[in-house]
Amino acid sequence: MSLVAVGTVAFDDIETPFGRAEKVIGGACTYISLAASYFVKPVQVVSVIGGDFPEDMLRHLEGRGVDLEGLQVRPDEKSFFWAGKYYRDLNTRDTLDTQLNVLADFDPVLPESYRNAEYLMLGNLTPQVQLRVLEQLKSRPKLVAMDTMNFWMDTAMSDLLKVLKKVDVLTINDEEARQLSGEHSLVKAARLIHQMGPKFLVIKKGEHGALLFHNDELFYAPALPLAEVTDPTGAGDTFAGGFMGWLAKSGDLSMANMRRAVIYGSTMASFCVEKFSVERLQELTPEMIHGRIQQFADLVHFKM
Amino acid sequence: MSLVAVGTVAFDDIETPFGRAEKVIGGACTYISLAASYFVKPVQVVSVIGGDFPEDMLRHLEGRGVDLEGLQVRPDEKSFFWAGKYYRDLNTRDTLDTQLNVLADFDPVLPESYRNAEYLMLGNLTPQVQLRVLEQLKSRPKLVAMDTMNFWMDTAMSDLLKVLKKVDVLTINDEEARQLSGEHSLVKAARLIHQMGPKFLVIKKGEHGALLFHNDELFYAPALPLAEVTDPTGAGDTFAGGFMGWLAKSGDLSMANMRRAVIYGSTMASFCVEKFSVERLQELTPEMIHGRIQQFADLVHFKM
Repeated sequence: MSLVAVGTVAFDDIETPFGRAEKVIGGACTYISLAASYFVKPVQVVSVIGGDFPEDMLRHLEGRGVDLEGLQVRPDEKSFFWAGKYYRDLNTRDTLDTQLNVLADFDPVLPESYRNAEYLMLGNLTPQVQLRVLEQLKSRPKLVAMDTMNFWMDTAMSDLLKVLKKVDVLTINDEEARQLSGEHSLVKAARLIHQMGPKFLVIKKGEHGALLFHNDELFYAPALPLAEVTDPTGAGDTFAGGFMGWLAKSGDLSMANMRRAVIYGSTMASFCVEKFSVERLQELTPEMIHGRIQQFADLVHFKM
Repeated sequence: MSLVAVGTVAFDDIETPFGRAEKVIGGACTYISLAASYFVKPVQVVSVIGGDFPEDMLRHLEGRGVDLEGLQVRPDEKSFFWAGKYYRDLNTRDTLDTQLNVLADFDPVLPESYRNAEYLMLGNLTPQVQLRVLEQLKSRPKLVAMDTMNFWMDTAMSDLLKVLKKVDVLTINDEEARQLSGEHSLVKAARLIHQMGPKFLVIKKGEHGALLFHNDELFYAPALPLAEVTDPTGAGDTFAGGFMGWLAKSGDLSMANMRRAVIYGSTMASFCVEKFSVERLQELTPEMIHGRIQQFADLVHFKM
């Protein structure tokens, strides 16, 4: 099965209490595609870059079975750029700079071969762009997931509500779930968000793990406590890539398999944060992934 | 088996975003004893109260198999009093008032029948008082656990380090673990705290659950997401009561059983927060506890 991944392919400057990295590879779609590529081929990318994006990263993506037909390249322009600084707890960050560049007037165009997508991951982008992607599909995918952020809740809520009606899975963090629903309790927030469209809600809590809500069923996957966290950038997108990659590979949308998908997402995210940028996601093996899945199983195991 | 529980028996004023309660029953030892009383009898209390503490609560405790021989009563004085206010996230609170009253010169005296305690829970108190209790034991208990807080790290660190050398289990929250160890990573913090004495470390993360560290083994019990949280006061003490109550009942200190004990602690804490004060802990049944344990098992269950 194939997975279409929509989002930014970009550069980041990152500052953490433990170091900094300048003009490194970033972008939601980059993280999603790399993480998903360990499970499903092809991952079909919908994005836009400038002439400054390194050719060797594009070749790396292709080498991992990522289809770049839907990646627009504008040779005379610059790629999207984000700069951010993390605080000591790594759960909070400030945006220092955002340069939209090629993203300013991005109009996504789905190649013919993408239009019968069975699995679609709409990474964090303006809800308008997410809608434009959905409009170009010839048939309803088996599963559509989307990520979004508080910025779109503040500035484009009515468009955001339109996208929400069309998706099956929403992945957001705990503060965003509270903002979107107006409820502090995540259990109550989930009930209200279900009513907005998504049958499945994944609430990402960073170092505290992830919650999956489906009607009245609830699954909690803790994050793996790590001795070293280098850079949390892209962890949420990597989660989404592992989650959707596993679902696309297995083709099973039962709640039991959705739980498994959350563990795959958490596993990929736990690797992502160990190094700056996408570095760690370029060097994994199936054995390393399997070993860490086992660590997650051990982490929560108890017998009454 | 019996459990000795040391800590405050007191009054609280509590303000949360959802309501307030004035001069209600509080105190670490009260929460520990009530929670543990669902698993083990007797729970032997070491504490002090004034003449103002309600007789009917003492009778309730006795009715639940709590032994009050070690509870000093000073008829002409007032019980310890704490007033606090919780913020919207319920994970942060301010202390509005602390009146030591009978606690100011509390010298714990262990009745003869307590001095061969097999299980000992030292609730949060000055490290000096915790040491005084340990000195009065005739033999080393099978398991000694202690709770403490950042205040003692700021004001009585050398005494605190003395107590830590003598205990098997330390229960603290994540910020306290970071302060005690000087390490942000909880994995690294745990390694350093093991070296201070405790072979087992429980890090309580409130709504994000609890971690149990033992050498290189790690167990993560998420907290049960609840639609309504009324009052987090005493949740950590209730956790300790459920944890130690289960261990004292089962007499099994294997890591597999320690994991179970964390689930019992989390279960009791999940009830505690549903109502103000100790109200919810007075009305539970074994069936209710068993049902919630099952919810914890369902919450984290996945099959690869």
